[in-house]
Amino acid sequence: MSAAPRRSDRTSRSDRTSRSDNSRRSDSTRAAILAAARERFATDGYERATIRAIAADASIDPSMVMRYYGSKEKLFATAADFDLHLPDLSQVPREQIATTLVGHFLKVWEGDETLQALLRAGATNESAAQRMREIFGTQLGPTVASIVADPGEAGTRAGLLATQMLGFALCRYVLRLPPVVSLRQEEAVAWLAPTVQRYLTSDTASS
Amino acid sequence: MSAAPRRSDRTSRSDRTSRSDNSRRSDSTRAAILAAARERFATDGYERATIRAIAADASIDPSMVMRYYGSKEKLFATAADFDLHLPDLSQVPREQIATTLVGHFLKVWEGDETLQALLRAGATNESAAQRMREIFGTQLGPTVASIVADPGEAGTRAGLLATQMLGFALCRYVLRLPPVVSLRQEEAVAWLAPTVQRYLTSDTASS
Repeated sequence: MSAAPRRSDRTSRSDRTSRSDNSRRSDSTRAAILAAARERFATDGYERATIRAIAADASIDPSMVMRYYGSKEKLFATAADFDLHLPDLSQVPREQIATTLVGHFLKVWEGDETLQALLRAGATNESAAQRMREIFGTQLGPTVASIVADPGEAGTRAGLLATQMLGFALCRYVLRLPPVVSLRQEEAVAWLAPTVQRYLTSDTASS
Repeated sequence: MSAAPRRSDRTSRSDRTSRSDNSRRSDSTRAAILAAARERFATDGYERATIRAIAADASIDPSMVMRYYGSKEKLFATAADFDLHLPDLSQVPREQIATTLVGHFLKVWEGDETLQALLRAGATNESAAQRMREIFGTQLGPTVASIVADPGEAGTRAGLLATQMLGFALCRYVLRLPPVVSLRQEEAVAWLAPTVQRYLTSDTASS
């Protein structure tokens, strides 16, 4: 019990230089962890990437990873740096926008298992859900805003688009409902594109 | 190391009656746990219901709950006994089927937080995902089969319906995308019903 005050005394004697050294060390440790995490998650996938392996890659103790990031899910949500690479829709003929978008989304989901991992993590972890809201707000939102007639409706239309595309991803890759898993990619595009087209361009909800 | 054979010897001496007593005790313990879990999850909701409280309600040790069910998520998936109370669509005029279904789903989702918990659990836990596939197969599947023109297409059409309705639930209740959260219920029905109508009744994917 007497050790705590002594440690605290010692800390208060530490000079400005060593404090800023500590802070720099902490920043560079975090950066090393994030860099290692990004590479591990990309290479091994979310499930197989372990805190232990990430710590080893960053040459630090696993307990430090937990101290800085709390859990694998939170580390993942912080490291996840997804660029959906959405196409420039202003260059796409109006009647092909939905087909282009749906096809693009399916390619992204099939090609990047970390996006599936983010969806799974987002369902139970608030940091990951927050990351999905950011992706929605900074990438999907502006893309939809660039093509809708009334910018005031861009948020709602982007939200509806998200309900359909994330719902498809949920049923196909996460819950694995058999008839959704067995749809061929071109069938999926043929079914989903008219839905997305309506969400983006119909005059009113029920038209 | 020598204890194992001795225990095994002792077990082999136990008579038929005590074995079946054990098995009956185990069955009744499981039943007591499930009954307590159903009540706790319904009363307290998934997040607040604890293994400790469920064990206390069933008058057994929490370690026994974990021994029988492994985790709170698995216990929940086993206890979850959802009846979607889908309406008899054969009695609904054809052009009102989608509006009726979408309105019904929204009421179910808004009224039962355990269904939201099942969706969250299903994203990360295979037992819960399996439970969602069962609900899909035994409740949504037959309902859709009762109204589609070609029974061979019922699975695909029910799957597409699921992608939209589960995707809406995911974005509104779990990920909480702002524009989806802020949709009024009647706006949601107006946007989603034409999608569902098309998935259930359109002649071909792209019509």
